[in-house]
Amino acid sequence: MTERVVLAYSGGLDTSVAIPYLAERTGAEVIAVAVDVGQGGEDLAAVRRRALDCGAVEAEVVDARDEFAADFCLPALRANALYMDRYPLVSALSRPLIVRHLVAAARRHGGTIVAHGCTGKGNDQVRFEVGLGALAPDLRVVAPARDFAWTRDKAITYAEERGLPIDVTHRSPYSVDQNLWGRAVETGSLEDIWNGPVEDVYAYTADPAEPRDPDEVVITFDAGIPVAIDGETVTAHQAVVELNRRAGAQGVGRLDMVEDRLVGIKSREIYEAPGAIALITAHQELENVTVERDLARFKRGVDQRWGELVYDGLWFSPLKRSLDAFIDETQKYVTGEVRLTLHGGRAVVTGRRSEASLYDFAMATYDTGDTFDQSLAKGFVQLWGLPSRMAAARDARLGGSPRF
Amino acid sequence: MTERVVLAYSGGLDTSVAIPYLAERTGAEVIAVAVDVGQGGEDLAAVRRRALDCGAVEAEVVDARDEFAADFCLPALRANALYMDRYPLVSALSRPLIVRHLVAAARRHGGTIVAHGCTGKGNDQVRFEVGLGALAPDLRVVAPARDFAWTRDKAITYAEERGLPIDVTHRSPYSVDQNLWGRAVETGSLEDIWNGPVEDVYAYTADPAEPRDPDEVVITFDAGIPVAIDGETVTAHQAVVELNRRAGAQGVGRLDMVEDRLVGIKSREIYEAPGAIALITAHQELENVTVERDLARFKRGVDQRWGELVYDGLWFSPLKRSLDAFIDETQKYVTGEVRLTLHGGRAVVTGRRSEASLYDFAMATYDTGDTFDQSLAKGFVQLWGLPSRMAAARDARLGGSPRF
Amino acid sequence: MTERVVLAYSGGLDTSVAIPYLAERTGAEVIAVAVDVGQGGEDLAAVRRRALDCGAVEAEVVDARDEFAADFCLPALRANALYMDRYPLVSALSRPLIVRHLVAAARRHGGTIVAHGCTGKGNDQVRFEVGLGALAPDLRVVAPARDFAWTRDKAITYAEERGLPIDVTHRSPYSVDQNLWGRAVETGSLEDIWNGPVEDVYAYTADPAEPRDPDEVVITFDAGIPVAIDGETVTAHQAVVELNRRAGAQGVGRLDMVEDRLVGIKSREIYEAPGAIALITAHQELENVTVERDLARFKRGVDQRWGELVYDGLWFSPLKRSLDAFIDETQKYVTGEVRLTLHGGRAVVTGRRSEASLYDFAMATYDTGDTFDQSLAKGFVQLWGLPSRMAAARDARLGGSPRF
Amino acid sequence: MTERVVLAYSGGLDTSVAIPYLAERTGAEVIAVAVDVGQGGEDLAAVRRRALDCGAVEAEVVDARDEFAADFCLPALRANALYMDRYPLVSALSRPLIVRHLVAAARRHGGTIVAHGCTGKGNDQVRFEVGLGALAPDLRVVAPARDFAWTRDKAITYAEERGLPIDVTHRSPYSVDQNLWGRAVETGSLEDIWNGPVEDVYAYTADPAEPRDPDEVVITFDAGIPVAIDGETVTAHQAVVELNRRAGAQGVGRLDMVEDRLVGIKSREIYEAPGAIALITAHQELENVTVERDLARFKRGVDQRWGELVYDGLWFSPLKRSLDAFIDETQKYVTGEVRLTLHGGRAVVTGRRSEASLYDFAMATYDTGDTFDQSLAKGFVQLWGLPSRMAAARDARLGGSPRF
Repeated sequence: MTERVVLAYSGGLDTSVAIPYLAERTGAEVIAVAVDVGQGGEDLAAVRRRALDCGAVEAEVVDARDEFAADFCLPALRANALYMDRYPLVSALSRPLIVRHLVAAARRHGGTIVAHGCTGKGNDQVRFEVGLGALAPDLRVVAPARDFAWTRDKAITYAEERGLPIDVTHRSPYSVDQNLWGRAVETGSLEDIWNGPVEDVYAYTADPAEPRDPDEVVITFDAGIPVAIDGETVTAHQAVVELNRRAGAQGVGRLDMVEDRLVGIKSREIYEAPGAIALITAHQELENVTVERDLARFKRGVDQRWGELVYDGLWFSPLKRSLDAFIDETQKYVTGEVRLTLHGGRAVVTGRRSEASLYDFAMATYDTGDTFDQSLAKGFVQLWGLPSRMAAARDARLGGSPRF
Repeated sequence: MTERVVLAYSGGLDTSVAIPYLAERTGAEVIAVAVDVGQGGEDLAAVRRRALDCGAVEAEVVDARDEFAADFCLPALRANALYMDRYPLVSALSRPLIVRHLVAAARRHGGTIVAHGCTGKGNDQVRFEVGLGALAPDLRVVAPARDFAWTRDKAITYAEERGLPIDVTHRSPYSVDQNLWGRAVETGSLEDIWNGPVEDVYAYTADPAEPRDPDEVVITFDAGIPVAIDGETVTAHQAVVELNRRAGAQGVGRLDMVEDRLVGIKSREIYEAPGAIALITAHQELENVTVERDLARFKRGVDQRWGELVYDGLWFSPLKRSLDAFIDETQKYVTGEVRLTLHGGRAVVTGRRSEASLYDFAMATYDTGDTFDQSLAKGFVQLWGLPSRMAAARDARLGGSPRF
Repeated sequence: MTERVVLAYSGGLDTSVAIPYLAERTGAEVIAVAVDVGQGGEDLAAVRRRALDCGAVEAEVVDARDEFAADFCLPALRANALYMDRYPLVSALSRPLIVRHLVAAARRHGGTIVAHGCTGKGNDQVRFEVGLGALAPDLRVVAPARDFAWTRDKAITYAEERGLPIDVTHRSPYSVDQNLWGRAVETGSLEDIWNGPVEDVYAYTADPAEPRDPDEVVITFDAGIPVAIDGETVTAHQAVVELNRRAGAQGVGRLDMVEDRLVGIKSREIYEAPGAIALITAHQELENVTVERDLARFKRGVDQRWGELVYDGLWFSPLKRSLDAFIDETQKYVTGEVRLTLHGGRAVVTGRRSEASLYDFAMATYDTGDTFDQSLAKGFVQLWGLPSRMAAARDARLGGSPRF
Repeated sequence: MTERVVLAYSGGLDTSVAIPYLAERTGAEVIAVAVDVGQGGEDLAAVRRRALDCGAVEAEVVDARDEFAADFCLPALRANALYMDRYPLVSALSRPLIVRHLVAAARRHGGTIVAHGCTGKGNDQVRFEVGLGALAPDLRVVAPARDFAWTRDKAITYAEERGLPIDVTHRSPYSVDQNLWGRAVETGSLEDIWNGPVEDVYAYTADPAEPRDPDEVVITFDAGIPVAIDGETVTAHQAVVELNRRAGAQGVGRLDMVEDRLVGIKSREIYEAPGAIALITAHQELENVTVERDLARFKRGVDQRWGELVYDGLWFSPLKRSLDAFIDETQKYVTGEVRLTLHGGRAVVTGRRSEASLYDFAMATYDTGDTFDQSLAKGFVQLWGLPSRMAAARDARLGGSPRF
């Protein structure tokens, strides 16, 4: 019986050409699977049609937008996930979800091979293959770009020779990956890291420098999850869509950074993530109000590690699962409202309120009604500083001029 | 012989009134010490005169601006010190420096007591007293506001009764602490954390929403230290002054947050730190370019701990010193230039270049000249994911539906 | 109505004398609560009788041994809790349990004050009072030894003067706290930290240097919990009792260390914890077999923090709860058997087996049947070392002799 | 000109056979380099002779024992380096040193290739190759066992066919790596992890169960470095040799564990490291006496990371260097004496004294002379517990039964 290969299909040139090429090269039948993670663009029926036209024996399109929002974006929000304190893990979040659907398709269609279009120098190959190894260790993986040294030029020639139904004439200079949570752009001119980005690399965000009126938004969270915007109940997916729209219109969420890839090199990346940045900003401040200090301090380290793990392709790992358990517990009281002003590229918190607040006006105020017993402080300060004091006295005693 | 008390003197109402009050209460002679940490405002000769007029037997003003920049702001910059990922430690940095000068004055003038104006519910009492305990454990400390339950209203009455040369009529509604590195503001109306700040709480920054032209600046760093701005050599102090001016003019560096105080309560704080935020933004990106990945990941945890320690009053602690040794070593190659656009409240990096760069165009590019050997990736990915794969297989074998 | 004070009662001199003293000093009725956490020694009916004889209006003894084992010792075991890598948290574990019962007794009897016998320089005052503050912030706390400067000598005089039914003649030179999980001893002669302990400070352990035959034990764990010993099902309490007996007979679990107290001083402590040390040793090795590498590495930091928190009196804190959630998730597969040899003061693992093992003979063996694909290693090694290689090349290029 | 390959040569079967095999396979001349890291065994002149007899064009033996002790063992001691809290990094420490000498030999002899005998499933290949990549990225690496699928059986046949001067008849069932810091053993029967080790796998340690008299030793440290034993000045090398002898005679330092290899598998390992374990035990306790609490807590995490990095082959990495800077600073006051009893497999600290001690008898004692001001504790305890108390009150207010 003919083997079947399940291909992660985007509808673009590279994966379209991969259909006949994989069939030729492996002798297998190709099943194309396109997953809608909110990337927008083309109609998915057209994408499906193209796959079949290129020779796929089956082609599926999966609407995974709600699943992506609920199972991938929300955990990232609860972890305030910002790789290198900046990047909200756009592509890294969609890969494990796509893996889920590739495996499901392989099971449905008797696939024994999975194929993806990633190169050998990026992070996404790791995310695909480590995920596949965890969910379906029996499936083989091929990555034509990496394993067969397949390049864009070869792909174009191949498409032209075989008359594949792909427009190869209008090529964008940009390599883009986008989904509900954001958008990543690479392009040759930005590989010189002294060059600034130009306005037309951006699609999710308006120019922050354009004059316009500010937008004020109130986000309601329940246990770390956005459940309403300006008082209207929203699903996770709706929350991100709405904030992409409104924060994007104000130019919020552009990022330009040099980033440490898992494969060991540094790369220059441009991102846009208006909704993600607005939501994380609001969520962090609500945590400031509702999460106890020692927990908040420790959670920063957990959040960092969570982001690194997911960036590094380890979504389906035991450590990720245990960090999730920690984070879930921290979110129990992250409930309340945050008011943001979106304007000029900034998302600024101007108000927060919560039934679960640990901010206590009576303890904090310097006005009438102060309930803080200042007489406690003296003993606290003395014992708090005791180890430092004893160490400094020791250092002085031993003649080591205390190097302060 | 009469005892002498060295008072940390600001020139304001509270510490001015403290001069005769301390003399009365303790029977000691009062020596007022005002330290210039770049807070601006009044002429320091006038401050000194007022101290004497209030009854100080000696009054000193110390210009510590360069010392503050070099010994306190620069280490904070190298640590990217942002308490709770936000606050660049404005007041926390000046306290240990003031402690240094109080101790020196006590030694010069035979002081046996040190006095400060902090209350018993803030962080600054801890910073003063832990610092004093480390540098001069023999000195006693009094804090009239805390230890004698001295309040502002009592101070005003006291000043009026004794005809002290202090203007008590034009009281600002704001309680402010400012220095070269930034400015902190508290005020009653903001103790309701749902209220947004009003424009007139700000002094270091222009309204970011006002239309104006962007400003582009190139900062040159040498081993993590800013040494030139737009090609002109600067001292540490000049660098911060210049960036306070230029970033402040663009509304950069405003912060509004709920913060965890060391004494165990949450408080609401407004900060402005235009120069600090611009410098840290540039420095972080230069680290992205020049610091190796594993080191960068570990340094985030060190930076966080450094910020917590300094916030918590432990500047003169053994751990702080050892973290400094770590950070010093990391900064050896943080050398190069960063170009920032300052505009509309944002400080955005648009370019970076460095002799010490670890970004390698030939490794990163997807164009001609690519030197990255993609064939290495397959083995890497397989072994990288091996532990997750084995764990997932185990989980599946034991029937625990892998909870992914 | 007369106030009532609930006293944490041990039956010993200090808390016995505290009964009439507290009544006298506070005017309140005293309710004595003794909690059996496996400390052994006197019959609890006699303890109860003594409290009444000393003037308590009520006296309760609570058998909390199973609760202590299940709710306090087991979580410590799952966290491999060893403060400073040594001390298995003997006293620190019992305090929050006693707090639970003091609060329950206060509620039952209308108590408004809680009293404990701790001094002001130890850790236990913190554990009692922070726990009480969390569970019952409305209750006041008094600590006669600390708050009324009550000393042992005063207590003896007081007991003699009032003819209290306490034997003050046979005083042990040792100050001891013991429970199911272990035993802590302090004594004057050991305050000189150059002096070694003498044999008679020990009660839970035989002299490890005495010749005797080794004892071999197989402990079965289910999800990190000991459920059988040598094949016989045990409760948590039985497991610890049995291992205290058998490991104690072999001299396992003696500790002698200088320790960092929360109040800022270093103290010298002698501990015995034969069962705890045997169980933790076995548990750690079972984790080595069943917990994935990255998770194991991260868990070490979590375990350390858990131990510090509990040592520091923060059992009832949000961070503790979130760390517990993390640890619970890690323990799901910590199931299997560990064989220990107990002998000469050592508890040594000699075998382990588990259905949930991640040790894979076929991957590990160098003999026939090896399934590890060595060809993957080359690519792995290259990319693993790439960041170091690029950094070393940069350092060399800049003439900084790489300091290796 | 003929290429030259520098071979890391042990004198054993595998690397002896590699000499002619590499020459044949690569066409290069082979230069054998044997490094003495205290592994003992054969005379190195004989080793050198054998290399030449097998066809090496040059053969060098390097006495690196002092260098190994000073530059590799001491840093590990100062880091209390115990991978997985157990393994003192025996092999992991020698590899970077051997790399240093291989590179030096390649430079001296015009070598362009380096060869080592490691397999593709162990850690040592990573340590060799990452080290080589850092120190000499221009050198190529070959690993016959891994790259040419060279096995022990092939090696024996090859040796016999060519009449190489190697005794292949008396093969040990054990695969051993040993050096000054310890000894690692693997063998087939122990690949069943339920099997206990048998006595004859051990060579550095006597049977701890044999009756014998205890041995008491006093180790003097200066800034974390052992400088005298029982009052006699020693070099680093002498210190380890002496403690290997004395602690080994008492059966100290045997380890049996399942370990996480870098390549992603778990393996079973037997180690002996009597000197290392005795020294680390003493060093840790001296740190307990001389290192301030917060620093000690943070250092545990640094120590763990240091051990992982070195285990993982990243000796020559920027993070390792920065951790070293941290650790160096921590050791400044780790000066003093520790008395150990070595007996029955245990190394037990019984005394410690230090001019730099932070243990303060007057603060710690409960007897006359107590200088600790207990009145400070009440305020400390209250503010220490304030965040937990507020969180517990919030939880209760929201009806969430506090899950304690």
